[in-house]
Amino acid sequence: MTARFYTPDAHRVGDLVDLPPDEAAHLARVLRLTAGSAVRLFNGVGGEFEGVVDAVSKGRAAVRLTGAREPVAEPRVAVTLAQAVLKGDKMDDVVRDAVMMGVAAVQPVVTARSEVTLAALRRGGRRERWHRIAVSAAKQSGRATVPPILEPCAFSDLTTALAQMALPGPAAMFVEPSADEGTLALSDLSDPPPRETTVIVGPEGGWDAEELARGAAVCRMVTLGRRTLRADAMAIVALAALFAIWKEY
Amino acid sequence: MTARFYTPDAHRVGDLVDLPPDEAAHLARVLRLTAGSAVRLFNGVGGEFEGVVDAVSKGRAAVRLTGAREPVAEPRVAVTLAQAVLKGDKMDDVVRDAVMMGVAAVQPVVTARSEVTLAALRRGGRRERWHRIAVSAAKQSGRATVPPILEPCAFSDLTTALAQMALPGPAAMFVEPSADEGTLALSDLSDPPPRETTVIVGPEGGWDAEELARGAAVCRMVTLGRRTLRADAMAIVALAALFAIWKEY
Repeated sequence: MTARFYTPDAHRVGDLVDLPPDEAAHLARVLRLTAGSAVRLFNGVGGEFEGVVDAVSKGRAAVRLTGAREPVAEPRVAVTLAQAVLKGDKMDDVVRDAVMMGVAAVQPVVTARSEVTLAALRRGGRRERWHRIAVSAAKQSGRATVPPILEPCAFSDLTTALAQMALPGPAAMFVEPSADEGTLALSDLSDPPPRETTVIVGPEGGWDAEELARGAAVCRMVTLGRRTLRADAMAIVALAALFAIWKEY
Repeated sequence: MTARFYTPDAHRVGDLVDLPPDEAAHLARVLRLTAGSAVRLFNGVGGEFEGVVDAVSKGRAAVRLTGAREPVAEPRVAVTLAQAVLKGDKMDDVVRDAVMMGVAAVQPVVTARSEVTLAALRRGGRRERWHRIAVSAAKQSGRATVPPILEPCAFSDLTTALAQMALPGPAAMFVEPSADEGTLALSDLSDPPPRETTVIVGPEGGWDAEELARGAAVCRMVTLGRRTLRADAMAIVALAALFAIWKEY
């Protein structure tokens, strides 16, 4: 199979583009491709190209774009996943799988029961790390789009953004099966599918009472069956179930 | 929340039952419960009980069953997950999440591209390990049923079992989006939901040509969207999507 590289500068057939340094290193040192090799490039904003390696030198690889390809179609519903930041590297796995499944954006959220602060995320360069994971997940899954990792925010900022329609709604906020009556089952979510929406998934310890109240004011509260799931499986299950009822699968 | 223990011997209100040794140790040493403590027991075959600790001694804990509880409902469709054994401990995670989601049984399968043999699984006590994971997943998820981990088998034994209806069919075999035409989308799977079925998910390297041919003879071949997913996310995505179209969620 032809190797495929992420190249944000790839936009027009005929152009000669430089691969980013890490992609160039992968091309040269790992795959040992040389001038004349056929490659594929995607630019992260939906463009997919055929190309031929023009020149490889220390730390650089230049590719001539020889043709445009039809990119893998994006899901019909553009889902922003607002995921409460999980412990350790579990958030990395959720970002990876959510991107491979086709989310349009990831909004990391710090909640009352998250074990991390916005300052610690910033200091740790976590957003940049999740962006690199999103690039790698787009490569693996065949997507030509790298969904943005939005600036991490507090839960109250999330509900404000939803109220002000800075994030797409009506949002679905997923809650434990033991939660209050008045929550919806997935099958209650209205047809037809929305054009875009936000899906909100909580942390290991669940939501606190204030978050549930704030969430209920701007979201549809949804449960997924009667069994408790692991926090790190929740987003994958929710996205798969939503894509299924929206006939994406 | 009242602590909940797995006790296969719990069957009738009024009985005095011994917890299995590891559950007794958890009750006594970790949770430090003593005689008179209220507990909940489930027996792994759908029974859920209230109980009171009667006596705790070295390595033993006896509980009097004081009442029956309504167990968390099982899914309406009984799904046997036939999962190709994945690398390292990834299979453990799939077993855990699949049990938490509600599968009726797990059939581990060794395929052409699995990196393990049936003999190695047996030597490593992997089936017993997956059973312990299933018990722990039933505890975490609130299920009163511990689904059986069936004896691992080769892929050819799986298709034979399906052909002889030793496993429930028609089975759905999940294949890569790049697979041949003639595969179904999830939304093509016929209504109404079956009473029981088998869902077949492949290993990291995918199916080989012979497996695809054998599978196609006894299964419906299904793709899930147009993006490639990680092998260890596939079962979770497939189960969630199926439960969604079957109105389990």
